[in-house]
Amino acid sequence: MHLYNTLTRQKELFTPKEPGKVGMYVCGITAYDYCHIGHARSAIVFDVLARYFDHLGLDVTFVRNFTDVDDKIIHRANKEGLACAQISDRYIAAFHEDMARLGVVRATIEPKATGHITRMIALCEHLIAKGNAYVTPSGDVYFRVRAFDGYGKLSGRSVDDLRTGARIAPGEEKDDPLDFALWKSAKPDEPFWESPWGRGRPGWHIECSAMSEQYLSLPLDIHGGGQDLIFPHHENEAAQTEAATGKEFARFWVHNGFVQINAEKMSKSLGNFKTIRDILEQYLPEVLRTFLLTRHYRSPVDFTLDAMDEAEKNLKRLYETLSLLDDTLAGEQSKGGVAPEALKPEIDAYVKNWSSAMDDDLNTAAAIGQMNVLLHLINRVLSDKGMRKNAGVRILLREARNSFKEWGSVLGIGILPPPEFLHSLRECRAKRKGIDTALVQKLLQERLLAKQNKDFSLSDRLRDRLAAIHVEVRDTPQGTLWDVL
Amino acid sequence: MHLYNTLTRQKELFTPKEPGKVGMYVCGITAYDYCHIGHARSAIVFDVLARYFDHLGLDVTFVRNFTDVDDKIIHRANKEGLACAQISDRYIAAFHEDMARLGVVRATIEPKATGHITRMIALCEHLIAKGNAYVTPSGDVYFRVRAFDGYGKLSGRSVDDLRTGARIAPGEEKDDPLDFALWKSAKPDEPFWESPWGRGRPGWHIECSAMSEQYLSLPLDIHGGGQDLIFPHHENEAAQTEAATGKEFARFWVHNGFVQINAEKMSKSLGNFKTIRDILEQYLPEVLRTFLLTRHYRSPVDFTLDAMDEAEKNLKRLYETLSLLDDTLAGEQSKGGVAPEALKPEIDAYVKNWSSAMDDDLNTAAAIGQMNVLLHLINRVLSDKGMRKNAGVRILLREARNSFKEWGSVLGIGILPPPEFLHSLRECRAKRKGIDTALVQKLLQERLLAKQNKDFSLSDRLRDRLAAIHVEVRDTPQGTLWDVL
Repeated sequence: MHLYNTLTRQKELFTPKEPGKVGMYVCGITAYDYCHIGHARSAIVFDVLARYFDHLGLDVTFVRNFTDVDDKIIHRANKEGLACAQISDRYIAAFHEDMARLGVVRATIEPKATGHITRMIALCEHLIAKGNAYVTPSGDVYFRVRAFDGYGKLSGRSVDDLRTGARIAPGEEKDDPLDFALWKSAKPDEPFWESPWGRGRPGWHIECSAMSEQYLSLPLDIHGGGQDLIFPHHENEAAQTEAATGKEFARFWVHNGFVQINAEKMSKSLGNFKTIRDILEQYLPEVLRTFLLTRHYRSPVDFTLDAMDEAEKNLKRLYETLSLLDDTLAGEQSKGGVAPEALKPEIDAYVKNWSSAMDDDLNTAAAIGQMNVLLHLINRVLSDKGMRKNAGVRILLREARNSFKEWGSVLGIGILPPPEFLHSLRECRAKRKGIDTALVQKLLQERLLAKQNKDFSLSDRLRDRLAAIHVEVRDTPQGTLWDVL
Repeated sequence: MHLYNTLTRQKELFTPKEPGKVGMYVCGITAYDYCHIGHARSAIVFDVLARYFDHLGLDVTFVRNFTDVDDKIIHRANKEGLACAQISDRYIAAFHEDMARLGVVRATIEPKATGHITRMIALCEHLIAKGNAYVTPSGDVYFRVRAFDGYGKLSGRSVDDLRTGARIAPGEEKDDPLDFALWKSAKPDEPFWESPWGRGRPGWHIECSAMSEQYLSLPLDIHGGGQDLIFPHHENEAAQTEAATGKEFARFWVHNGFVQINAEKMSKSLGNFKTIRDILEQYLPEVLRTFLLTRHYRSPVDFTLDAMDEAEKNLKRLYETLSLLDDTLAGEQSKGGVAPEALKPEIDAYVKNWSSAMDDDLNTAAAIGQMNVLLHLINRVLSDKGMRKNAGVRILLREARNSFKEWGSVLGIGILPPPEFLHSLRECRAKRKGIDTALVQKLLQERLLAKQNKDFSLSDRLRDRLAAIHVEVRDTPQGTLWDVL
């Protein structure tokens, strides 16, 4: 498998340090509010990467942290008159709820920053002893950027460029404007921990250096997170760990792209964020997964309702075909039959293409594309009664069905029983469009009665009335079906 | 209010250190398994104490910790191949679920031990500097019991008596068998934190000394927990804090009694524990609350199914009377009427007695007793049509109803809308006794039809059939009601 490595700015063949095992650290949320779709993207991307490693037979140790002490948490706690831990507990629980709905598997280990303070202090002491950090008179500890040679290598910035325009803010006791805080002395109304420099709390970057090293060995096979974390967060993490340990921090740096709303960067400060909860009021969770995974993980994604509707349509088509396929395979087959010669190689090619797409820097968009082409082929086969009953064709269809199950287990798409999904989808769409399903049932009953009484003019009028409230009716051998237009 | 103080072995008038404010620290669970009814008792007792303080107009800061690093957690984590934090997170979430069902209000602050390691280390350093603790060659830190004068004052044990028969276990590097661990050096496969004595983890007692002092000022107004914690846990907490700070640790020590099952101490090691979840499969949460609160908090409680059935019956009677009372008060009243002269003083006496009972060392059993006497009186009044419509009587009944609301808000009993509770109770009892409620509905329908057809012989046979499956039928002006016998 090839992965784009932010460090080398190219796709590289990924092989783990220790054969058969992958250690992956991904920066998780700062638990001070509900997650928005930017968080959903990062979580889903690394969920799929971990699932894909697992699919390839690798034993993955996946560590995703929670930042549970931070300015934003403190601010919110003081505003609500609660302890920081109450705020972070609340939003960690909400994160788990959201992720469960989105089908994001729990990481192997999900450590919290506050449980690792002594390790952060030990790292700071180490850095001070080596001359890579210093203590200020107020008891802050800063990392001395110019004392570390590799600074800037991850984000591709030069220290000289960074220094241009950088200033020390009033009240800061740094030696150099580029230096960043490892430890901050306690202000009133802040949670604090005892340290050799008095009471204080850790800077943000140091927590990931401490937790990654605690649960995984250095160098990490993969360090992941959103693109917005490359600088300064990941640059600083790497500088800290490498200066303190003399070891390389991470072999592969994998970063997912931004989510924009109508082409603006999606972030809390822009005020245009949509929480996952907001979205799941309107759409099924799998639709959001599909929307996000039909874009390559490094591309920026523009979140629009049109794009969500499009994802919903694609997912519906997938499930409708799988439903038809399941019904066909459960039904009668003729005694014999040989599949057309071209069919097997064609299906095999799509299966192979799926893997190639995933191996090519986790190109889920291309992988889903191959799934769609195969769905098209399956529909073509199923619409032909001779083919549908042909025993040879059915062997191939059954294999294809198994591929969809396998792909579903990696992507988290198309894994529900199709009738169940399609029912939920109809209910969800009806709710979104304000359709009164009780009224629909009533009109359908009346129409059924009209048809039984051979009053076709009434039954047509009822069909029109249903169409007027955006309900489409189809009479099939299995009975009357309806759907939201 | 008077509270029994374990420290002085007598009931004392409780006044908070700072007028109008109470700081209370209660030892919470070690998060390695589901909670049993012993945990439920402690949680409910201190929930009621906090609610009662609030009722008295005091501003309560209630701290209840979680022990999230400990031998038992480590053992379970290693057995399941998970990180300790995953085990403790799981059981903390389960605790919150159980407590929510039992109506236990969240504490003001619910800190976890692992978030306070630096403070524990600082306490150890303090104790070492003062000669109250020492470091062993392997990097353990022990509290030197004989260097602290007041040791034994809480549990009423003398150091000499304790020393008789005490031995140092092989491999332990203590100076004196009574000394206890403040900090334990790390063994392989254990979570660890950096410390001045190498990697290790805190002893159990030190966490409460650190967390109580962080969130409350010394001396604590109240330190609470189960009686089983008096020695050694609370004795050691007090010794540590008082030796380190020179301040008194807690002014009032409040301990709840054990829960026994058929007169054996209820604890995990005896293997006879019942989880809260087990019990709530069979009984409504409010029944368990009622069962526990009809005993004084310091008495041992014997958990038996008969006692639970009894509590259920009492609670049913409470809600039935409240339901009748609500219906009466919502119905017609006559134009005038003066209450019998004796009625008001009698009701007032019960209300006063309720407060006196609560003020007398939180005697919830006696308080509930007063509520039952008042219920009896109310039933008597309601059964008299003249009284029921008498405007003067109704004023008193309305006041009594308000008292039940107030008492409910303190005890967490009798607070649901009565019809809702009674419906849930019937469903719960039907389920427990394996009664098929669909069949009940069917037989009731048939019986109704029989009565409409004046076939009273059939309707009687149906009533008998219902009785045979433990269903009692009552024909009332509001229609036919049924209940589980």
